[in-house]
Amino acid sequence: MNSQQQNRFPRVVIIGGGFGGIEVAKGLKNKEVDVLLLDRNNHHTFQPLLYQVATGTLDAPSIAFPLRKMFRKQENFTFRIADVRGIDTTNKLLDTDIGPIRYDYLVIATGATTNFFGNKDLEYYAMPMKNVREAVNIRSFFLQNIEEALLKETPEEREPYLNFVVVGGGPTGVELSGAIAELRNHILSKDYPELKKEDMNVYLVEGLPKVLANLSPQASEKAELYLRELGVKVLLNVQVTGYNGDEITFADGQCVKTKTVLWSAGVMGQFPAGISQEIVVRGNRIRVDEECRVIGMKDIFAIGDVAAMVTDDLPRGHPGVAPVAQQQGRFLAKNIMRIINGQPTEQFKYFDKGSMATIGRNKAVVDIGKVRFQGFFAWWVWMFVHLMSLVGFRNRVVTFINWAINYITFNAGIRLIIHKYQRPPRYSEELKQLSDTMK
Amino acid sequence: MNSQQQNRFPRVVIIGGGFGGIEVAKGLKNKEVDVLLLDRNNHHTFQPLLYQVATGTLDAPSIAFPLRKMFRKQENFTFRIADVRGIDTTNKLLDTDIGPIRYDYLVIATGATTNFFGNKDLEYYAMPMKNVREAVNIRSFFLQNIEEALLKETPEEREPYLNFVVVGGGPTGVELSGAIAELRNHILSKDYPELKKEDMNVYLVEGLPKVLANLSPQASEKAELYLRELGVKVLLNVQVTGYNGDEITFADGQCVKTKTVLWSAGVMGQFPAGISQEIVVRGNRIRVDEECRVIGMKDIFAIGDVAAMVTDDLPRGHPGVAPVAQQQGRFLAKNIMRIINGQPTEQFKYFDKGSMATIGRNKAVVDIGKVRFQGFFAWWVWMFVHLMSLVGFRNRVVTFINWAINYITFNAGIRLIIHKYQRPPRYSEELKQLSDTMK
Repeated sequence: MNSQQQNRFPRVVIIGGGFGGIEVAKGLKNKEVDVLLLDRNNHHTFQPLLYQVATGTLDAPSIAFPLRKMFRKQENFTFRIADVRGIDTTNKLLDTDIGPIRYDYLVIATGATTNFFGNKDLEYYAMPMKNVREAVNIRSFFLQNIEEALLKETPEEREPYLNFVVVGGGPTGVELSGAIAELRNHILSKDYPELKKEDMNVYLVEGLPKVLANLSPQASEKAELYLRELGVKVLLNVQVTGYNGDEITFADGQCVKTKTVLWSAGVMGQFPAGISQEIVVRGNRIRVDEECRVIGMKDIFAIGDVAAMVTDDLPRGHPGVAPVAQQQGRFLAKNIMRIINGQPTEQFKYFDKGSMATIGRNKAVVDIGKVRFQGFFAWWVWMFVHLMSLVGFRNRVVTFINWAINYITFNAGIRLIIHKYQRPPRYSEELKQLSDTMK
Repeated sequence: MNSQQQNRFPRVVIIGGGFGGIEVAKGLKNKEVDVLLLDRNNHHTFQPLLYQVATGTLDAPSIAFPLRKMFRKQENFTFRIADVRGIDTTNKLLDTDIGPIRYDYLVIATGATTNFFGNKDLEYYAMPMKNVREAVNIRSFFLQNIEEALLKETPEEREPYLNFVVVGGGPTGVELSGAIAELRNHILSKDYPELKKEDMNVYLVEGLPKVLANLSPQASEKAELYLRELGVKVLLNVQVTGYNGDEITFADGQCVKTKTVLWSAGVMGQFPAGISQEIVVRGNRIRVDEECRVIGMKDIFAIGDVAAMVTDDLPRGHPGVAPVAQQQGRFLAKNIMRIINGQPTEQFKYFDKGSMATIGRNKAVVDIGKVRFQGFFAWWVWMFVHLMSLVGFRNRVVTFINWAINYITFNAGIRLIIHKYQRPPRYSEELKQLSDTMK
């Protein structure tokens, strides 16, 4: 960090280049601060379209954008790939894998990771989808399993390779299971003439009595109907009790033989060590005040999925969605400058633009305040909003082309296994192998 | 292989879905044979543009095309991902990782792999570029090294991370070193404001006295000039003696400190066990007769890079380029049908359409028979030919857009580290670690 050690201006360090972090950095452009953005990856990820990478409609680079390129015209901006392990709030130092980093103001925008609720088997065998690598893994594993199914002699042997179970009926689970069902309906028997679409099953498992529980009742009902029309087996009020890599079991005693469980049933905040457990609330989120300041801290802020701005109106804080992170990021950049300039600070107000989810071709649901609509027009709105939200002209053009070809031909898609997916050895299995070797 | 065990028609098994293998399969469409194509990957790779994936101009899916999708309208076609380990010529059986496979006619179209000429250090530390995975690895490692350089305090410490050495002055080495030089000239200081282009060095090392030795003298001279104009340090008549991951050494005593050696200095045929060493010639290629039949075999053929059709005119066989493989593939499909139908067979004649290589923006060399031209027009010819050769409408459109944006903005490119590159542990190192554990 040699180039940043001696600065004239206060240094704002942002941990995380997600929707929130990049808005803070952009908001500080041309201001009298030095901005240092840290992320484990060299790119921002457009998470709402991860499921299209997982199902092969889009290529990974369309939804990932290099952070350096994004900020190349911002002179007060520096980027480093770094893994931040801890925060020393007393000395205002970060402990990272690239050495200690000093901050004057710290923004924790580290987002959320998959929550397996402590179930180690699920954590090992079920596949999460929170970053591009994980989405590409799902794509590879999906294709590998179909190839593997073709090598089996009997339908019974094939079954676990052709059953795909998505757990979690939120927007991610709905969109993912819908997209897999479209692959089944339109692609399967074309690419694999030995298979009929009836050979493959797509399950969506949800613990609540409805999907899209955070949207309007109309949206929930319509989404469930659309999923069933696509052939998704929607299991509601069903709790997952276990998964051993071959069979997923439910609290009601049912089970499904499957090699592939995709887990979108929960997220939890992730952040470096050094934050008092007293201010960590449900979902592993850090409590912040209405200025996004971490409770009890002076110069440390948290925004987005990792932050819980608990108020009387919002006992659990804001929902973990991109617009909250973006609005908090823009707000915080201004507030930090107000603090530096000795001006009175303001309080964050969330403007809810609405929610939407797509289920499949011509099938989406949109809630905008009291305005709710579903179907063909909702689908076009969904596409337009997501296309325009992508970062980079190239990405918008390439995504548009992929979507257009897919819409016309029913047959776009990137069904490549480039990096074959293999589960890493499990810790206990590694130990067993080592002890076997030593016998 | 249940679905293929009982056939009425003779079964033609093709090992390898490269330029040659896919032409054989296409040529057998609607013929009274069953075609089984085997490949380790589920996609065909357009190898001539691998260097653009390595340098981030193109995304991997643009140059890879799923083999199942390519042949979905061919009813007598079956595909399996398989690694063929051996050929039992007596029983006409292949030994594969998905079980034994019977053939009536066998086409070995397994291509070539990187040749490190037995140097185990080079094999471990230098990076090859023969498939999409390896190209993506180069892209990641290139970006990782620049990020690493930024963490170093002194120019001396930075140097090995910012020196890039390409070994081999054939078309691949010329195109790769030219593309890296363009990244250096147009991108480096924009993405990494802490660095100047002078901080980075690109070397091209060739053992012969000229680059592009297989092209015309005019093409060689012009290519070298173009490379030098781009700032590539072209080292001719230089033999590599060793590389330890930190420093590459040459026979003349020179050395270059570098973390990155890209190896395009040689290829060799690769094929399953079971072929007599007596018919394997220079470059590990299998000798075939003028009907592409493996010498001494009745029903086994070899085409493309793995085959050496040695004649008085061509003591080393044909050059290892795509058009040879494609023409042999088309030829062989017809000859196999002639054999099956009891008609007289024909002999292969290669039609040389010429050679070309691109060095950088507006800079290419083209030899078509006695017609030779270089520069701006050659570059457009190169682009047009390669664009039209890509498989799939989507890939052509996306590649065109990437090239157009790159041409206009000097700033396209996919500079993402999605899968971080790490060298796998070396065998001896693994053993050492294990013995350390056991102490």
